[in-house]
Amino acid sequence: MKVSARNVFRGKVAATRPGTVNAEVDIDLGGGDSLVAVVTLGSLNELGLAVGSDVVALVKAPWVMVLTDAGDVKLSARNILSGTVKAVEIGAVNAEVTIALRGGTEVASIITREAVSDLGLKPGVAATAVIKASHVILGVPR
Amino acid sequence: MKVSARNVFRGKVAATRPGTVNAEVDIDLGGGDSLVAVVTLGSLNELGLAVGSDVVALVKAPWVMVLTDAGDVKLSARNILSGTVKAVEIGAVNAEVTIALRGGTEVASIITREAVSDLGLKPGVAATAVIKASHVILGVPR
Amino acid sequence: MKVSARNVFRGKVAATRPGTVNAEVDIDLGGGDSLVAVVTLGSLNELGLAVGSDVVALVKAPWVMVLTDAGDVKLSARNILSGTVKAVEIGAVNAEVTIALRGGTEVASIITREAVSDLGLKPGVAATAVIKASHVILGVPR
Repeated sequence: MKVSARNVFRGKVAATRPGTVNAEVDIDLGGGDSLVAVVTLGSLNELGLAVGSDVVALVKAPWVMVLTDAGDVKLSARNILSGTVKAVEIGAVNAEVTIALRGGTEVASIITREAVSDLGLKPGVAATAVIKASHVILGVPR
Repeated sequence: MKVSARNVFRGKVAATRPGTVNAEVDIDLGGGDSLVAVVTLGSLNELGLAVGSDVVALVKAPWVMVLTDAGDVKLSARNILSGTVKAVEIGAVNAEVTIALRGGTEVASIITREAVSDLGLKPGVAATAVIKASHVILGVPR
Repeated sequence: MKVSARNVFRGKVAATRPGTVNAEVDIDLGGGDSLVAVVTLGSLNELGLAVGSDVVALVKAPWVMVLTDAGDVKLSARNILSGTVKAVEIGAVNAEVTIALRGGTEVASIITREAVSDLGLKPGVAATAVIKASHVILGVPR
């Protein structure tokens, strides 16, 4: 598999919490980094996801929001990933920002140029990547 | 908090409708404008959202769809926000369109240049912003 | 209705599977192509969706992920649409890729330029469009 998503996170299932319709899946990305995904119960079973399973989590960069000074707010999104800006690549309207999490995982986000400037994003600045659990697509090897 | 999302809507919770797993939250944005968000029951409780709570609703501009001549269609999305185009900023492939709702709230959308031309979007034109309730991230001050 | 979404799929409802809160809707796009959407039960009823109903499915191009060599992976997303690249239009940071499915339906995706190069996307190449069922907005004529 090759995929257009800038974020292809490889990890292991750390926990699953099946609900009535959906299930939450905690993914250990190594180094202490982790990600939560929500998938349907049908997908959970079809993919055979259980604790310890190898899993790939796919997240398109435009689905990642970036925060700074995140300490004064609580958000409904499940993935609030603190780290440090590693790189900023500026385009005409959009920019791609890469945030390195503490455990070494890198998260790519596409945001507007204006937001890069408003938030003062540049390498070394503390920043938080926000990802809704329902925006994560999970995959397993066949 | 500073956030990359072009849409940072500040308002008050007008109603909550808890379901089995998720809850719908109606947000009064002032001036008669409103927004519906869907969050998990867990988030509803963790954020302490109740009628009258101050809340911030975050929506990335690429998650906002734009319609014109919307009168002849019914859509499954919960937020169908009618207004008038206030500004259009054109990039190489994409464009940012700002729609002013009747109550004064402004909604930013990133769509393709081609769509701007197809829909004839320019300041003063009537347009509708469409946002899925599940694409809204809610936040509250800590 | 005119809409900014690059993907406006017209079809007929082939099946509905109501759950507790949400419902899955299978849409026959003709030529053997199909799409699955998840909407709330409220929307299902409000739109009057039943087998045979005419329906429009709207999907913004940035919500579509592109895969190649998809044979070795199973994904949680419900729509895994195999086809052939028909066109690639390159911008400064992003690119628009059009994939023609076997039945003739065309799917537009916005991905990064880098991904176009990594995946070797060009007309004639086999590629797969991935769309989460919850990212599909349904519409019906009033």
